[in-house]
Amino acid sequence: MIEDKNQSRTKLSELGEFGLINHLTQNFKIKNSTTIKGVGDDAAVIENKENQILVTTDLLIEGVHFDLSYMPLKHLGYKAVVVNLSDVYAMNGNATQITVSIAVSNRFPLEALEELYDGIYTACKTYNIDLVGGDTSTSTKGMLISITAIGEVKKEDVVYRNTAKPNDLLVITGDIGAAYLGLQVLEREKRVFEVNPNSQPDLTNYSYLVERQLKPEARKDIVKLLSDLGVKPTAMIDISDGLSSEILHICTQSKVGCNVYEEKIPLDQQVISTCEEFDLNSTTIALSGGEDYELLFTIAQEDFPKIKGNPHLTVIGHMTDESIGANLVTRAGQQIKLTAQGWNALSKD
Amino acid sequence: MIEDKNQSRTKLSELGEFGLINHLTQNFKIKNSTTIKGVGDDAAVIENKENQILVTTDLLIEGVHFDLSYMPLKHLGYKAVVVNLSDVYAMNGNATQITVSIAVSNRFPLEALEELYDGIYTACKTYNIDLVGGDTSTSTKGMLISITAIGEVKKEDVVYRNTAKPNDLLVITGDIGAAYLGLQVLEREKRVFEVNPNSQPDLTNYSYLVERQLKPEARKDIVKLLSDLGVKPTAMIDISDGLSSEILHICTQSKVGCNVYEEKIPLDQQVISTCEEFDLNSTTIALSGGEDYELLFTIAQEDFPKIKGNPHLTVIGHMTDESIGANLVTRAGQQIKLTAQGWNALSKD
Repeated sequence: MIEDKNQSRTKLSELGEFGLINHLTQNFKIKNSTTIKGVGDDAAVIENKENQILVTTDLLIEGVHFDLSYMPLKHLGYKAVVVNLSDVYAMNGNATQITVSIAVSNRFPLEALEELYDGIYTACKTYNIDLVGGDTSTSTKGMLISITAIGEVKKEDVVYRNTAKPNDLLVITGDIGAAYLGLQVLEREKRVFEVNPNSQPDLTNYSYLVERQLKPEARKDIVKLLSDLGVKPTAMIDISDGLSSEILHICTQSKVGCNVYEEKIPLDQQVISTCEEFDLNSTTIALSGGEDYELLFTIAQEDFPKIKGNPHLTVIGHMTDESIGANLVTRAGQQIKLTAQGWNALSKD
Repeated sequence: MIEDKNQSRTKLSELGEFGLINHLTQNFKIKNSTTIKGVGDDAAVIENKENQILVTTDLLIEGVHFDLSYMPLKHLGYKAVVVNLSDVYAMNGNATQITVSIAVSNRFPLEALEELYDGIYTACKTYNIDLVGGDTSTSTKGMLISITAIGEVKKEDVVYRNTAKPNDLLVITGDIGAAYLGLQVLEREKRVFEVNPNSQPDLTNYSYLVERQLKPEARKDIVKLLSDLGVKPTAMIDISDGLSSEILHICTQSKVGCNVYEEKIPLDQQVISTCEEFDLNSTTIALSGGEDYELLFTIAQEDFPKIKGNPHLTVIGHMTDESIGANLVTRAGQQIKLTAQGWNALSKD
């Protein structure tokens, strides 16, 4: 419904593989002094003498991870980069380089790839990232994108998932649940459009939700904020699969339990109102929704005064002895075991 | 025709994503001291204080880059790793880590992925590589593999493509053309099998060709050999797309020309005899065949005595002024302009 059917089309075969790579990457300028050699040789060359290197990778497949009927290609390019950077920030690091591999079937003209790379370019600019390599290929069906992000962190600053301690506070950035609801809104509009192709979607009441789904941001700012506040998390992870699943990752890997308080979970007003409209439980959405790309971390109790009252950070619970397990404490004071129901499981309903 | 139809099948959904990753990677042990943290967090952590980091990535798609009707999954896993390592060696570096992302449709059971990872494991063991991350996903069609390889190189040792000089000698490792012919043999056997499913392929006369196609090796040994000989190439590239295409990369990026002598191009006896059988010109195959994963490099003339007579290395020509262009000098002494016809173009015939 967002697609422009009248766009001019240039066949990819007119350019050839190397022509295509040059064409798509010519505007990407090197921004990091650690990038010695980017696109154009057998491998990128990165210099890094004092820091540890962080490497993370994600694969996005049309029909599995995204739907081009409501995901504009520019947003897709932007999001594909952001979800990878988020993993670097979740290690308390600074993202510096990416490689981008794409494969497309012959239904995509050059202009489609230009739009995709426009989004990749914007993300690289926003987050100060160098594109240093990649691969382009044809696919037998649809589009797929594989991105690897590289970052750096001082040895003493790296934060893992497996180092939370009992009595640490559990902290979340921003608010959650919106990205998943944005997807529900977009899928509803798609069904409406399929029934009546002349319908125009009115997304005014869901603007925040849709933006969180289509153009998520990674919390680079939090890494700086924590550094400025003098707080080093004891464990950290990004929220890609849903709060519940991520809490369980920290608990399992750190061999601790936790109590998470339902009333503390930060929700945007649009999340609350849209949950009412869709007849969904907002806590379930917050716990299982996913794709928020907020950070979830634990801190020592003595660091609490440093973060207290910060509008970006909410304490939602505390870690316990492993034997207690991972629990949600409801508004009614009831304890419920957390289960790892990510958004993949949820979206199959 | 190689597939075993009687294998037991375990559905991937029984394991879940994290169970699957754990299951497939549990036997991969860390081998490099630079690998601080491998699989299991938001990102891998790599320490590298003195060297430059090399990063390269490749995307392999079923039906485009491989055909499972004659490519056993174990070989596919091995080859997918090797083609990436080859890019690191082509920078005169040492490969140390990989990330592996895979997506498979629901036609693949767990046992298929185990076979694939068996090949990945063998390649990691052979080349001393740590698997440090990845992503697993479902695909809507077929299998795809995206691998990123990371390596290291001393700042003063890195070799680019764009630094060849006029009068440098052009050197190739091993012999070429065999991998492409191996593919032709396998595709012929596939067509025979499709007509007569009871036929048993006899590949005795093509054993070297088929091995070069199904189980190529990357020339890690050459990086060591050159170091031992005290030779630093002036430019280097690996031969993935075909000799002609790679020579043109060096010439274009280095702004030089070259004369390559047809009679010097190293061919295996099976390449010569199979070209005769298939009525193909062996020089065309050598120039355009691709997938050999040998190294192509240039050296200063004064280094010639150091490599002279080495059985792994063949001087096939020399670089010239850019104005001369890139030429093949035939056995008859005729000069022909080299064209960039990679194996992709060739295989469409």
